[in-house]
Amino acid sequence: MNPETSHETRDADALIDEISRRVARDDLTGLAAIVSRAPTNDLVEACEHLPVRALAVTYRLLPKQRALEVFEALHPALQGDLVRGLQDAEVATLFAGLDPDDRVWLLDELPAALAPRLLRGLPERERELTAGVLGYPRESIGRRMSPEVLTTHPELTVAQTMERIRGGLDEAETVYTLPVLDRGRRVVGVVSLRTLLGAPLEARVDALMQDPVLVEATTNAEIAARRCADLGLLALPVADSEQRLVGILTIDDAIRILENAESEDSARQGGVEPLRRPYFSTPVMNLVRSRIVWLLVLAVGATLTVQVLSAFQDELEQVTVLALFVPLLIGTGGNTGNQAATTVTRALALGDVRPRDILRVLGREIGVGASLGALLGALGFAIASLVFEPRLGLVIGLTLLAVCTVAASFGGVMPLVAKMIRVDPAVFSNPFISTFVDATGLVIYFVVAKALLGI
Amino acid sequence: MNPETSHETRDADALIDEISRRVARDDLTGLAAIVSRAPTNDLVEACEHLPVRALAVTYRLLPKQRALEVFEALHPALQGDLVRGLQDAEVATLFAGLDPDDRVWLLDELPAALAPRLLRGLPERERELTAGVLGYPRESIGRRMSPEVLTTHPELTVAQTMERIRGGLDEAETVYTLPVLDRGRRVVGVVSLRTLLGAPLEARVDALMQDPVLVEATTNAEIAARRCADLGLLALPVADSEQRLVGILTIDDAIRILENAESEDSARQGGVEPLRRPYFSTPVMNLVRSRIVWLLVLAVGATLTVQVLSAFQDELEQVTVLALFVPLLIGTGGNTGNQAATTVTRALALGDVRPRDILRVLGREIGVGASLGALLGALGFAIASLVFEPRLGLVIGLTLLAVCTVAASFGGVMPLVAKMIRVDPAVFSNPFISTFVDATGLVIYFVVAKALLGI
Repeated sequence: MNPETSHETRDADALIDEISRRVARDDLTGLAAIVSRAPTNDLVEACEHLPVRALAVTYRLLPKQRALEVFEALHPALQGDLVRGLQDAEVATLFAGLDPDDRVWLLDELPAALAPRLLRGLPERERELTAGVLGYPRESIGRRMSPEVLTTHPELTVAQTMERIRGGLDEAETVYTLPVLDRGRRVVGVVSLRTLLGAPLEARVDALMQDPVLVEATTNAEIAARRCADLGLLALPVADSEQRLVGILTIDDAIRILENAESEDSARQGGVEPLRRPYFSTPVMNLVRSRIVWLLVLAVGATLTVQVLSAFQDELEQVTVLALFVPLLIGTGGNTGNQAATTVTRALALGDVRPRDILRVLGREIGVGASLGALLGALGFAIASLVFEPRLGLVIGLTLLAVCTVAASFGGVMPLVAKMIRVDPAVFSNPFISTFVDATGLVIYFVVAKALLGI
Repeated sequence: MNPETSHETRDADALIDEISRRVARDDLTGLAAIVSRAPTNDLVEACEHLPVRALAVTYRLLPKQRALEVFEALHPALQGDLVRGLQDAEVATLFAGLDPDDRVWLLDELPAALAPRLLRGLPERERELTAGVLGYPRESIGRRMSPEVLTTHPELTVAQTMERIRGGLDEAETVYTLPVLDRGRRVVGVVSLRTLLGAPLEARVDALMQDPVLVEATTNAEIAARRCADLGLLALPVADSEQRLVGILTIDDAIRILENAESEDSARQGGVEPLRRPYFSTPVMNLVRSRIVWLLVLAVGATLTVQVLSAFQDELEQVTVLALFVPLLIGTGGNTGNQAATTVTRALALGDVRPRDILRVLGREIGVGASLGALLGALGFAIASLVFEPRLGLVIGLTLLAVCTVAASFGGVMPLVAKMIRVDPAVFSNPFISTFVDATGLVIYFVVAKALLGI
């Protein structure tokens, strides 16, 4: 053994020791610092001597390019160990549970060559967990896609592609849509089985393929599913940031994603936590739990209205008739706000409106609210003048005009604000908007009343 | 000319005259009575002499079995005329616009042999109109399905079926799912292209096919689409009441149907008429129109609250502090009602709950409402007792208990009542429920207050 080798071995040994210690303490940050400094050949040697779990954890912290180099330098048996290690539930949980900020700086994308290999053959639940190891964030399509993709290449013929399809019938998620890959796994097109069946057997795929429509694996699952459904595609290839194929989203999975999202939206709009199972098989106590939190929050919010009314208690005592209109005025405000919120929330879900459109939405909703307020206000003025007296009619009419304008603009803008601060827009639910608009409406009402009635 | 023939001719001539007169007056009822009495051979002769429009209208009023006999007796050229006549926009509008009750007794199903022939080649909008001629009700899947179906037969081989697929590539709606028909057009199975590709060329279809999952053409489009999506099928065959194939529903059309239904549900839940196009391309005045009707209806409903409060004006003047809690109490009631309505409406849309479950739903929602009311009531009692006085606290607490129970049961039951009287459950929207619960809540509040405070 010459001194050079012995020196290297000592370095590698020291590295192995240091890695083992960090892994034992789950110290990912320290570990990441060590592997980023270590030379590639030391790392390869260390990888050959680490137990499977430590191997997986260490490997996962490598930057993408070095990860590819190390992977290719590993013995095939070790490559298999590594994949199994990364699939291990404990390791998967470790990475899947990472804080989003930590994830961004600790986990570079795994090479696309490894991604499908990691997910293939896993049952759906484990697949979702393991996808977290790939660095795909929670709720991303990378965690929901299928890795069993049948592909073809531009220079292959129809006959060769049909051969591939026949060979993949048992495993592939779909055989009806095939991503076309270049030599670097990059998606350069898509070809449908229907097109293949209509073409001569010797035709080349690149003459038949269509431009690819892709999603990135980090895309939000709902957005990816919506794209698949909107385009009426049976399947949508999923790629990494370099357009290299990592999986596929089929329309039936897209539908399931959208249906869950819509159940959630609908529930939140009504101020309920979504049920995880059918109505009748949800115990009554779970129904109570799905509603009580929101009800409490809203009830606490509603104490605002008690405070506003307390502030105007003198005026109320002088002109008790003012109290008669309180439910009508705040109810109308709440309804107007809910209408605006419902319309904008749905438009957001369909992708018709984006958060950056906030000023345009505000402008339109002020217009809509003022128009509605003018119509209702005129009616309110007429009726209250006839039944009570014209000055009170004027108070009611002007309050309706102001409340409708405020309610529509608030209701229209809130879903966009929610989206901006990365909260589900449906969380600023109709009940939430009603409660806020109630308090504001009361202030407007009494300010107008004080001014016009001179109390 | 012998007397017998002349007699028959006279009968047919008289029939033609009578038919022409009724057709001119759009008297479908009278016409139906005449054709039901006329002998089949007279009808065939009459059909040969009528102008195309009269031919189509008369023919359509025949009962199914006779319609098939007459069709088979007609010269092929006349068969073509008949199909064109039934496709005619004027004729289509006449039948499509029929009152549902009239439709049921006037229009028997057209024979399944005729149905796809009638719809084939029409653009989507006309197809939907013409499907009305087939007797499929508005909103039924018969009006939305595609008639261009590629089919196979149990005794055919894989090779023969592949031949059919290659021949149908240009026109068929889908080539991935093939209904398997017996000699009478009855659907006896379904076979996927994937299965065909994996089987030997000489295998027979009946050895490969799966049991058929069907919908009837008269099924509500949303229910059919939901079934297609829930089963994760790429296509769902559509049949008449005798399981004879009339069309197919593909998953992309099913998605469009579901998406529109969900936009409608979401809109109605918020008390808005659904927009027919994207938010920003809807003029402000159309947004106003989509909201004003509901707002007006709700505002008129809300005058109920003014009346209730007027009735208790004396009590309000004696104890003004009661007014302070009005928005909080009715707001909480509205929220509880909305939560229940949202949960049950979604469960209805997903098929988890049916109208006949109304008593079970009522029972559960009373339980949920009472639990929520007990929790909130206890809290309300504690806070109001501390800030104001214990007797007022008791009024608030008991009112919350009662209001939550009433609101949850009302909100849970209303969507089912709507469904029973064949109204979109989402029409009894959250705003509608709030308004009703507001008035009821006020009555409860003042009755409790009078009893406990002795006013």
